[in-house]
Amino acid sequence: MADLLQTLSEITGPGGVLTGTDVTSRAAGIWMSESIEAQTMVRPKTTAEVSAVLAACHETGQPVVAHGGLTGLVGSALTERGDVILSLERMNRIEGVDRVNRTMTVQAGTVLQAVQECADEHGLMYPLDLGGRGSCTIGGNISTNAGGNRVIRYGMTRDMVLGLEAVLADGTVVSSMNEMIKNNAGYDLKQLFIGTEGSLGVVTRAVLRLREKPRSQETLFVAVDEFDKLPELLKLMDARLGGALSAFEVLWNNFYRLVSTPPAKQRPPLAQDSPYYVLIEAMGGDDQTDKARAEAALEDAYEAGLVTDAVIAQSEAQRLELWAMRDDVEQINRFPPIFIYDVSLPIPRMEAYVEDVNRGLAETFGTYRNFAFGHLGDGNLHFGISAGSDNSAKKGVDRAVYAPLAGIGGSVSAEHGVGLDKKAWLSVSRTADEVALMRTLKRALDPRGILNPGKIFDAAEGAREDVDVAAG
Amino acid sequence: MADLLQTLSEITGPGGVLTGTDVTSRAAGIWMSESIEAQTMVRPKTTAEVSAVLAACHETGQPVVAHGGLTGLVGSALTERGDVILSLERMNRIEGVDRVNRTMTVQAGTVLQAVQECADEHGLMYPLDLGGRGSCTIGGNISTNAGGNRVIRYGMTRDMVLGLEAVLADGTVVSSMNEMIKNNAGYDLKQLFIGTEGSLGVVTRAVLRLREKPRSQETLFVAVDEFDKLPELLKLMDARLGGALSAFEVLWNNFYRLVSTPPAKQRPPLAQDSPYYVLIEAMGGDDQTDKARAEAALEDAYEAGLVTDAVIAQSEAQRLELWAMRDDVEQINRFPPIFIYDVSLPIPRMEAYVEDVNRGLAETFGTYRNFAFGHLGDGNLHFGISAGSDNSAKKGVDRAVYAPLAGIGGSVSAEHGVGLDKKAWLSVSRTADEVALMRTLKRALDPRGILNPGKIFDAAEGAREDVDVAAG
Repeated sequence: MADLLQTLSEITGPGGVLTGTDVTSRAAGIWMSESIEAQTMVRPKTTAEVSAVLAACHETGQPVVAHGGLTGLVGSALTERGDVILSLERMNRIEGVDRVNRTMTVQAGTVLQAVQECADEHGLMYPLDLGGRGSCTIGGNISTNAGGNRVIRYGMTRDMVLGLEAVLADGTVVSSMNEMIKNNAGYDLKQLFIGTEGSLGVVTRAVLRLREKPRSQETLFVAVDEFDKLPELLKLMDARLGGALSAFEVLWNNFYRLVSTPPAKQRPPLAQDSPYYVLIEAMGGDDQTDKARAEAALEDAYEAGLVTDAVIAQSEAQRLELWAMRDDVEQINRFPPIFIYDVSLPIPRMEAYVEDVNRGLAETFGTYRNFAFGHLGDGNLHFGISAGSDNSAKKGVDRAVYAPLAGIGGSVSAEHGVGLDKKAWLSVSRTADEVALMRTLKRALDPRGILNPGKIFDAAEGAREDVDVAAG
Repeated sequence: MADLLQTLSEITGPGGVLTGTDVTSRAAGIWMSESIEAQTMVRPKTTAEVSAVLAACHETGQPVVAHGGLTGLVGSALTERGDVILSLERMNRIEGVDRVNRTMTVQAGTVLQAVQECADEHGLMYPLDLGGRGSCTIGGNISTNAGGNRVIRYGMTRDMVLGLEAVLADGTVVSSMNEMIKNNAGYDLKQLFIGTEGSLGVVTRAVLRLREKPRSQETLFVAVDEFDKLPELLKLMDARLGGALSAFEVLWNNFYRLVSTPPAKQRPPLAQDSPYYVLIEAMGGDDQTDKARAEAALEDAYEAGLVTDAVIAQSEAQRLELWAMRDDVEQINRFPPIFIYDVSLPIPRMEAYVEDVNRGLAETFGTYRNFAFGHLGDGNLHFGISAGSDNSAKKGVDRAVYAPLAGIGGSVSAEHGVGLDKKAWLSVSRTADEVALMRTLKRALDPRGILNPGKIFDAAEGAREDVDVAAG
């Protein structure tokens, strides 16, 4: 390790390598109290340095964990003592914006909010938005294929990345900085690095697709009395709003009560007695007529018997209040221990699935709280579950949430990824042949298994052990 | 080969294997006069049969070329005499439609138009649309990541496939029949089979994402007097139409004259003296007010000086006439020899690039015709070039079109793929490291190189030769 440290220092220059408490005094995640385990952090400033760092680690079989903003929720950036952290924190430059081509070129360590603000300054929008916006980086967004609130309109990160540059485990730089929406000249290599949690390469730069900035935002909050009406309402709004629908966020009754009752800050915009509520948003192009259009769509929904009560935000302040209510997920923390879930499944199976989960929680724990909410339009449900008396309850809650997904085509991770936390449950959503193919890719691109080893799935048996010996 | 034929017959039963003139009496492509070269075609009816067929071919190193509707334009489905064709023509069943989840499950041999019609019957839309709709298959669309006219709104095939099932070269069935918009549980394996032209596996089934059917279609045709105003007009329309913009098709002057002058069927809707014309379409949700909205957007474009003349279709008949004009690409065939191109590049470089191409054509051929049109919103340009006296001119035209793409981030294939036709020019758009990574994937998934060998790029040196020996 001493020789390798020397090499890494030479590659990255003064301040490039941090060791000991300079590393371990940092938190392992921005929402975690635990410290980083790894003793070494290397902070390259250029792609060439990333390449040299990986080549050196590859040569010695040194495990490397890439770090972005550490806002992940599945332990994908956690380290072990002997790991080298490859932090992109000094590669955070926006290299350029093309207003006409509607693209932005950035280094992977750029913080999402900086990208959003830069796009805004150019009259454009980078539509990815999520709670960690002030810390999470574009590289992290790419490696986890981040989703967020506007997927129904703009897709996930995968749909916003036109091109990228990545460094393979052996230091090879693969530059696929495509700037076009259409490019079918050979394999679309960027897909290898999107949503693969840093296990196949380290993303160093990206070309992002920007969108025209909406000229209006209409926000509705409605009450719905039966689950089956939710997807019908989604269909109606999607059809009526003609491409402008950007969010369709469902709140189960108990989640709504939680976030609209003191000590939560927001007050209930609608009576609290409906089983479901939906926050609906449209981003339009005509601030003169979009409100009338949203009202007409809502009128249709009333007439079709799909909603029982509704409010339309009459001001930007009201609009923000509705979102603040939906986003006040922290209220769940009043009932520790709390376990957060992020699953997806076909919408027609959702009602029965939630009942299955609650039945399982009741059987295991007797009493429990399950606050449910989600991006229904994407098939994505979140649970905030309070059960048991301490964190030892997690296994039982995991089982109650994940086991019923098997056989109904559900996913144990809609948007957060797998990391370490969901690894044991991957087989619920993926077949042995699928995992075998993932391993084939891993072996082909990272034959020594140095990149984020042990995350998502175990590499071929013994791989991690071999690597540790080599690193010693 | 005789042993293998026997095996393939046993796997697929009566009528499963065709040989000799039953194969070679078929055209090599629906727009080609040449016959198929291969002497053997196997037509499995199930995924299990596809698996057994590939396992048998893998064992003997037999090259296999998968066939869909043969509407491809780059020679990706062409065969050599010793190849086995794996035709999906007997796997053309629509397995189900989920109106609520907005998904359709199909076998790969299903014809696109059948999918479109089935979606329509359920009040939904499968947005992929292209000229070959009556022949091309979903499997072919997937293997080429087909684009078409509505990419600006709905994306390419990649964006319409939620899940798929593919059979690897060795017969392993990888079923990733995901039905959700969001699923980050492990690597997104379907990407390996989208746009890889049958070189990494054979797609057997897919889950398609359906959309709500538009309730209005507004079609505008406008004249623009400067190239730089085209992207500004695109930006304005995109912003003003609030997500409804579905097509932005640019016609260069000579292409417009060609398709609006006898013997072409359509008459010019606008005077023929403008350098550029644009066919703009919006698919909306409100047939009462969408037309007024399109008119207001057009008014803004006039005021901004972006258009000099315009017409809005006042009836469905007029709408179809405008599209018939745009789609009358066959008029180009009046000036043989004709060479068709499909490139993409950053929009800000497009005007200079077209000038470069024309300069190159003039230098090489003296006289030439270059009819240009394209999906400008996607950075995608098509050329129909008439130059030289016979097909021997192709090399010179290729050079004039492709060489200027190097160094400006252009792609030799926006939507058609690479196949055999563009293979020699792949290096214009992709670096040696990118092609090396493609080869790494090819070797990992198809170690004996039996799947569509020699297409897109050459496998490791000698691979095809080895295979031929094994197949003998």
